[in-house]
Amino acid sequence: MSHTRSTQEVEAMVPRFQLERLLNQDQAGRRISLLGSIDGTPALLIAERAAFSTDPVHLKSFSESLDRIKNLGANDIYSWFLASTTHKPANQEVESTQPPDLKLNLISPCTEQHIKKYSQQGVRLVAETPEIYRRHVRPYMQAKREQGRLNWVFNIIEGRTEQEDVFYREQGLEGFLMLPDLNWDRKTMSGLHLLGLVERRDIWSVRDLTKEHIEWLKHMRQKLLDATVKLYPDIDQDQLKLYIHYQPTYYHFHIHVVHVALEAGATQAAGKAIGLESIISQLESMATGQGIADISLSYTLGEASELWMDIFEPLKSGNEPKISQ
Amino acid sequence: MSHTRSTQEVEAMVPRFQLERLLNQDQAGRRISLLGSIDGTPALLIAERAAFSTDPVHLKSFSESLDRIKNLGANDIYSWFLASTTHKPANQEVESTQPPDLKLNLISPCTEQHIKKYSQQGVRLVAETPEIYRRHVRPYMQAKREQGRLNWVFNIIEGRTEQEDVFYREQGLEGFLMLPDLNWDRKTMSGLHLLGLVERRDIWSVRDLTKEHIEWLKHMRQKLLDATVKLYPDIDQDQLKLYIHYQPTYYHFHIHVVHVALEAGATQAAGKAIGLESIISQLESMATGQGIADISLSYTLGEASELWMDIFEPLKSGNEPKISQ
Repeated sequence: MSHTRSTQEVEAMVPRFQLERLLNQDQAGRRISLLGSIDGTPALLIAERAAFSTDPVHLKSFSESLDRIKNLGANDIYSWFLASTTHKPANQEVESTQPPDLKLNLISPCTEQHIKKYSQQGVRLVAETPEIYRRHVRPYMQAKREQGRLNWVFNIIEGRTEQEDVFYREQGLEGFLMLPDLNWDRKTMSGLHLLGLVERRDIWSVRDLTKEHIEWLKHMRQKLLDATVKLYPDIDQDQLKLYIHYQPTYYHFHIHVVHVALEAGATQAAGKAIGLESIISQLESMATGQGIADISLSYTLGEASELWMDIFEPLKSGNEPKISQ
Repeated sequence: MSHTRSTQEVEAMVPRFQLERLLNQDQAGRRISLLGSIDGTPALLIAERAAFSTDPVHLKSFSESLDRIKNLGANDIYSWFLASTTHKPANQEVESTQPPDLKLNLISPCTEQHIKKYSQQGVRLVAETPEIYRRHVRPYMQAKREQGRLNWVFNIIEGRTEQEDVFYREQGLEGFLMLPDLNWDRKTMSGLHLLGLVERRDIWSVRDLTKEHIEWLKHMRQKLLDATVKLYPDIDQDQLKLYIHYQPTYYHFHIHVVHVALEAGATQAAGKAIGLESIISQLESMATGQGIADISLSYTLGEASELWMDIFEPLKSGNEPKISQ
């Protein structure tokens, strides 16, 4: 480019962009990359939803400024909507040329627990040594299991509930079942997210895995891959990623199966997700009799979580954790 | 709630929402959680930018429908803007009450390489065994290094370029320097993202790490944490996450340092990021003389990447990779 284009010049180019085709859509659909031309010259236009302004003046007038509010559904105190940002004075009708650009959720009346859940929570990275696991975290897991927190898992495994959600089932020593993750719409293949729940009850988390489990893990991995491509023949095995969480949300071993194209978020992040193949590799390189309970695991915790408040924050401050053995 | 609210009722509630305060902002600022009240009843309003419509009719009229296009900057073929979605017929002036809700990037004229870069790329998960690494991937790394791809790294380390970007420097056997990552705005602390480049040149990637490097890695980890909290005293060490990439973008060992609050995206995902503490743990549990080159690493590759096209796709199809030893 031999001349520098002026502000007015480039601003005038945008509306003259003629679309040829959509190249890509990502960031949960909030960014689009368009290929086209401007006066015959090939051009790319990339549009991205901007961050909301948190300027107090704008936030105060935000709810009044919404246009074309359309209720999609309601359930008890929850209701959800589509709406449009508006650029009109109140009470003036304008024609719409573009679809709604906002999703709204309303919770009314809301409780303290809601407020806590939706407030920003600080995060900490903790190092769980084998000793901290044995003395504090393992007893914590036991308490959770004894509180009946796993009843829903056992109900599904024993066939008492949610059978319509069980996409696949295999019984026996290497038994497992596959359920869709709540966050998957069950339609968009590139967003596929399944959970493989194992039938055996002796593995509470990755911490219970030892060298003795290597063959079982390799078989489980292959079975989960085979089951998934059987359910969805358009997917190849190398388009699937398998990982576990530590800390997991519940203490019954389960494996996440996602499409490699699923946009990575917190569920797949370092400090939360550990690749299944990585666990197998680590076990293979350990000495006989060793296992994941014998190494340190570092991961993130929310400051409002029980593990932080009852174990790791006390340890950091030099106090004795509530849960100790 | 003893009565079910009608559509009209709930739609009328939204504009009556009175803001008390902002609870949280996430999804790169594209979701806000607001606490307030409706007619005195506490309520939560959560607003999220919706996905773009990829309906062909809407996409075609998209560029013409943009309003209040404001050019922020330009550099050669690139220009970037803020804009607003509009809900008005063309040529009618309307008053704006809310800030721009779109960010635009325009590349004109664009080349085939741009189109390739911005088009959706398929992804594959590959298993790089020690043998595949030794026979194919290591030679590929060597070729990249010999092509002069690392000149920019050596220029920075040797003080010839970009010194204004070097936030921290330590020389010697455990020498390193810290640079801000391109994606960080250098202002928002919760988005902190630094890169620690080591001075030593014998470590091309995580594959070169053996048990012998454990002490060096522990020292490097502590130095990076100390340097970061020295630069940013409001941050605690346990608010930082350290990881490396495999495959990395360039074959000179470097460590990512991010704030734990940084929203996890592709850079932190399983199949790309490996926690530094995890590498240290794995090395500690290996036998003497062993290292990361002796285990299998599974990770994701784009189908347009050289590693996929020249090594892993041929292996998958039963052909001999281009790069072989």
